[in-house]
Amino acid sequence: MELLPVEGLPEIRPGDDLAALITAACEIRPGDVLVVAQKVISKAEGRLRALGDVTPSDQAAELARRLHGDARMIQVVLDESVRIVRAERALIVETRHGYVCANAGVDHSNIEAPDTVTLLPEDSDRSAADLRARLGVDVGVIVSDTFGRPWRLGIVNVALGVAGLPAVHDLRGTPDDFGRDLRATVVAEADELAAAAGLVMRKTARVPVVVVRGWSSEAAPGTGRDLVRPEAEDLFR
Amino acid sequence: MELLPVEGLPEIRPGDDLAALITAACEIRPGDVLVVAQKVISKAEGRLRALGDVTPSDQAAELARRLHGDARMIQVVLDESVRIVRAERALIVETRHGYVCANAGVDHSNIEAPDTVTLLPEDSDRSAADLRARLGVDVGVIVSDTFGRPWRLGIVNVALGVAGLPAVHDLRGTPDDFGRDLRATVVAEADELAAAAGLVMRKTARVPVVVVRGWSSEAAPGTGRDLVRPEAEDLFR
Repeated sequence: MELLPVEGLPEIRPGDDLAALITAACEIRPGDVLVVAQKVISKAEGRLRALGDVTPSDQAAELARRLHGDARMIQVVLDESVRIVRAERALIVETRHGYVCANAGVDHSNIEAPDTVTLLPEDSDRSAADLRARLGVDVGVIVSDTFGRPWRLGIVNVALGVAGLPAVHDLRGTPDDFGRDLRATVVAEADELAAAAGLVMRKTARVPVVVVRGWSSEAAPGTGRDLVRPEAEDLFR
Repeated sequence: MELLPVEGLPEIRPGDDLAALITAACEIRPGDVLVVAQKVISKAEGRLRALGDVTPSDQAAELARRLHGDARMIQVVLDESVRIVRAERALIVETRHGYVCANAGVDHSNIEAPDTVTLLPEDSDRSAADLRARLGVDVGVIVSDTFGRPWRLGIVNVALGVAGLPAVHDLRGTPDDFGRDLRATVVAEADELAAAAGLVMRKTARVPVVVVRGWSSEAAPGTGRDLVRPEAEDLFR
């Protein structure tokens, strides 16, 4: 299995044809998986907000005081959220899509325009499927972002949107090496692919797209929604 | 960056010289990172318990009733734990090392002896450092296991022990592509390496060791402890 950085992509702007830019920048083969950073998807889709246009609510102002944050930024986070999970040290929310993450994925780094933030794509699965269709090659596409985790330090790259590849691989009931049950194993394959690509993307090197070559799975294709734990099964929401 | 499975390793037994077996099974080059599944480390170190020798406490028996589990297995989990984080649907505990995970990493799959479970290594950082020293090549070593996560479905491979490579890469204060701050970014590089290797290990294919070639980091070497979020900073313990 190989991980190949896609280098030389220009700064992405709203309306850019990301599929054409990627195709021009690298060679894609059938069976590859493309991991694409959410940030370039959001920029191409115009999922940006200028903080100068944001009027913070009382709730945002209060949270900004508590968290020593920017009330406008917090207002944008609230606009993207359906629930506050924790507002202590960090603002951990549940987004409309069911992702639980810091700041609803709203981010102000690596954006050309000052005082502007990126939002997560409206529907990362749709973004992944659209990009896949436009690439015109039978590949998998993951839209990824870096999330923190409870209990463990540091962020890791995870899969938000998935198209043309499995998101999870359910091994429950398949036998182990000695013919006994592997009882409780569902592997988050798309998250492991996103994490692997994260190693190549780095944060400052302008490598928002990574090609994974030589990986395959026996699981059926899925979507990023397969990776969201249903609330009823979640012990930490 | 390449990921190479180490195939053909025999079933590992207590006392086996894992370094010699790995060296015989693959070519290792300076700068490589070896990701080694906890299970083979634990087997080589004799970190096994026969359930027949375990007498469940009242607490274990009560938890077994609630969770529909095996009271002997739960007793072993309690013996490895310093705190129960959740006992509902699953037994989520904090281990002596500070890892928060299901069943304290105690596992009964892929073990030759019936009714026997593996425990996590006593000190995964020491296990990684010992293996690294015995390999006699300047490589990084990660001892990995698969953990579930709150909020997201499925398990991913993570780094428990780390030697000879960075665990986290602290990018806080370094500039982004437009010269502004990347404020809150610490990347869990060893976890991303473990996740990448997890894609190659699979669960049933007897590939407990993966060589990562062509990866490098500017961060300083660390240990698996760097990846454990201190309790005071943890919002979900």
